[in-house]
Amino acid sequence: MKRIAIDMDEVIADIQPKFLDIFEKQVGRRPSEDEYFGKKLYEIPGDENIRSYLFDPGFFGDLPVMEGSQEAVKKLMAHYEIFIVSAAQEFRNSLADKHDWLQQHFPFIHWKNYVFCGDKSLIGTDYLIDDHAFNLETFKGKGLLFSAAHNAYEKRFTRVNDWNEVLAFFEQEQAK
Amino acid sequence: MKRIAIDMDEVIADIQPKFLDIFEKQVGRRPSEDEYFGKKLYEIPGDENIRSYLFDPGFFGDLPVMEGSQEAVKKLMAHYEIFIVSAAQEFRNSLADKHDWLQQHFPFIHWKNYVFCGDKSLIGTDYLIDDHAFNLETFKGKGLLFSAAHNAYEKRFTRVNDWNEVLAFFEQEQAK
Repeated sequence: MKRIAIDMDEVIADIQPKFLDIFEKQVGRRPSEDEYFGKKLYEIPGDENIRSYLFDPGFFGDLPVMEGSQEAVKKLMAHYEIFIVSAAQEFRNSLADKHDWLQQHFPFIHWKNYVFCGDKSLIGTDYLIDDHAFNLETFKGKGLLFSAAHNAYEKRFTRVNDWNEVLAFFEQEQAK
Repeated sequence: MKRIAIDMDEVIADIQPKFLDIFEKQVGRRPSEDEYFGKKLYEIPGDENIRSYLFDPGFFGDLPVMEGSQEAVKKLMAHYEIFIVSAAQEFRNSLADKHDWLQQHFPFIHWKNYVFCGDKSLIGTDYLIDDHAFNLETFKGKGLLFSAAHNAYEKRFTRVNDWNEVLAFFEQEQAK
């Protein structure tokens, strides 16, 4: 059975609304899409400390689930072994939050298939679905770029805009 | 630069004294070496609940450092990229403890090189130093079995009895 590694933030966990809420609370207005298109969410001019919230206990514990991801992952599990691979190690307090979040929202994935790492280049799966081009750059298998505002201008990788497009990609892979 | 994955418990973190202390506290006597030779430490007859302590917050936070491991890892870092790879995901509360422990005792290893996983078969490094035969069985690179009481009868892998033997092994590898 081939193996798919799936990233968490901005792939199965939707971090964007929380960043926009924090920005609005700190700066007094909600940023427009133009302000964060092609940029990381914590690079919107106006609140230079916004990235520090990532270090807070609880930050990653209550993120909404990305639309369609639960159903799609369940479908993929019929044909592939699924690993959740999150570059979580920068954020010590995120580790328990992410573990709890996976147990709550993806209880059908065994804890044996969770990976909290820093550098994804040592992940030896056949596929990686990730929103960060730098993770796909060093990955040795086939990388899929999951669309996020910050990667809008990235052209080097196979792009999937949502979980329906992920399923369509793997249907084609199986038909090969 | 070739990559070495190094396990934590019973390789760089010495879990044995803590298990023996707990056994002694619960059962009223310290087990003899004969009782745990060739067995997992939590399989010593007398306290069947001893494995449950692994789930407690703090359990992994104050383990002693395995003799010679800090100096040996520093030496290996001159020639190899080192990753710490712990199958920690069964124990949700161990994650922050293990992160803190690494920051305290191995501050010269970057967090980017920490991996907390469940199944080590997806770790794509050149070497793995581990006390568990089941991790070496599925590893695709060269595995080294780090001696522990529980693996005393294991014959299938290159054995290293301590960190001096690890260094001697890699000196030979470099001379090849």
